[in-house]
Amino acid sequence: MIRRSATTSQGPIAMLYELYYWPTIQGRGEFVRLALEEAGADYVDVARRGKRGVPAMMKLLDSTRIEHPPFAPPFLKAGKLVIAQTANILFYLGERLGLAPRDEAGKLWVHQLQLTITDLVVLIHDTHHPITTYLYYEEQRPAARRRTADFWRYRVPKIMGYFEHVLATSGGPYLLGRRLCYVDLSLFQIVEGLRYAFPKRMKRFERKVPRIVALHDRVAERPRIAAYLASERRIAFSQWGIYRYFKELDH
Amino acid sequence: MIRRSATTSQGPIAMLYELYYWPTIQGRGEFVRLALEEAGADYVDVARRGKRGVPAMMKLLDSTRIEHPPFAPPFLKAGKLVIAQTANILFYLGERLGLAPRDEAGKLWVHQLQLTITDLVVLIHDTHHPITTYLYYEEQRPAARRRTADFWRYRVPKIMGYFEHVLATSGGPYLLGRRLCYVDLSLFQIVEGLRYAFPKRMKRFERKVPRIVALHDRVAERPRIAAYLASERRIAFSQWGIYRYFKELDH
Repeated sequence: MIRRSATTSQGPIAMLYELYYWPTIQGRGEFVRLALEEAGADYVDVARRGKRGVPAMMKLLDSTRIEHPPFAPPFLKAGKLVIAQTANILFYLGERLGLAPRDEAGKLWVHQLQLTITDLVVLIHDTHHPITTYLYYEEQRPAARRRTADFWRYRVPKIMGYFEHVLATSGGPYLLGRRLCYVDLSLFQIVEGLRYAFPKRMKRFERKVPRIVALHDRVAERPRIAAYLASERRIAFSQWGIYRYFKELDH
Repeated sequence: MIRRSATTSQGPIAMLYELYYWPTIQGRGEFVRLALEEAGADYVDVARRGKRGVPAMMKLLDSTRIEHPPFAPPFLKAGKLVIAQTANILFYLGERLGLAPRDEAGKLWVHQLQLTITDLVVLIHDTHHPITTYLYYEEQRPAARRRTADFWRYRVPKIMGYFEHVLATSGGPYLLGRRLCYVDLSLFQIVEGLRYAFPKRMKRFERKVPRIVALHDRVAERPRIAAYLASERRIAFSQWGIYRYFKELDH
């Protein structure tokens, strides 16, 4: 998959980014894809580029020659740099893609918010695999039920309530106010994922976070995001990602 | 607790940092404490400063007036900045305390390593509380046993093996080679924590990661770290932190 920029908004020396992530899931790579798409950046989704994509990713991952080896996907190649860890990639891209403030305090603030998204992603994943990722969901069903109950009872209200508060303080529609940053895209993705995995619970919960829902809708309407979501570049949700739907966990 | 610098190595306008973290556990705050101690920084461990410490922290945490509110401790006050998320705090401090490279590629690299420590910390914590933090360990013992078994079988070898590889590549004794960075201090702390929680397992495992053990020992011998570890500023490990000892999880 190659996404070529139609604009020259990045200036005369636009970078061609290479994103390395699993080709069949949104996963953590999706937070990076959304940033690249919103910015109209030139990028290659390497592992989705035909049969040789995944081997190319694994080769890089197993290479002992990389100066700064990634521990796991996603990672980004930007010129000579190889950058891993989702939030770290976004920290790097934010400045370059116009999706983060330029001053230090602002950069640290959006990164801090992104790291709270990182924490939330682990919690979402662990609702369906609380005990171990080395057993099927069906083998840890009672634990998943309990974990999911507490996740919705305690963690979702607290974390999403925090983002709702940030939006109230900024005045919205985005976390920084009128200016979009990469965390807005990630928060959009969290809403999408929770709607997929927990449609009933999320429907009830959304009434409590109207500003987050409004942010979600604004992001979805942005022309490049709308085009991306409608394209084949957007991988569908599935039972293999962070967000999985199990009827008995959603009531 | 106030730690006053005996040196003037920070130059004429040394900052007085305020660290906010739970006063009775090492927890995530310890990664920040170790950086501040190694650098000989002036800092106040606010919540440990008498009876009014914790209320002062909670007041800040609950304040609706902070421009960039933290979601949870630890957070750091540095002049007008309030910075949260452990890895984000270290990113900020690294440059100022001489515990990170100054070039962008180097900064991103050590931050990337720190974010892998962040991931590991969640996994360590979840060994004893896999299902939910809202039940006692004793109420989720079989799940904890399974989670711990897989943690040691798969995750520890992979993650610690990764750091061992980074040390092999850098030539050691530190992750960047001869120059200490804040991730070295965090990796030291991980070794300390795993030794506390899993003395038997760790004793066996350490043979596989000699470079990490050597790094640990080098860090422990650094004069300021040694002085800190021997001081009352170092909180003891306990059954309330990230690392907890349960006999049946360690064999």
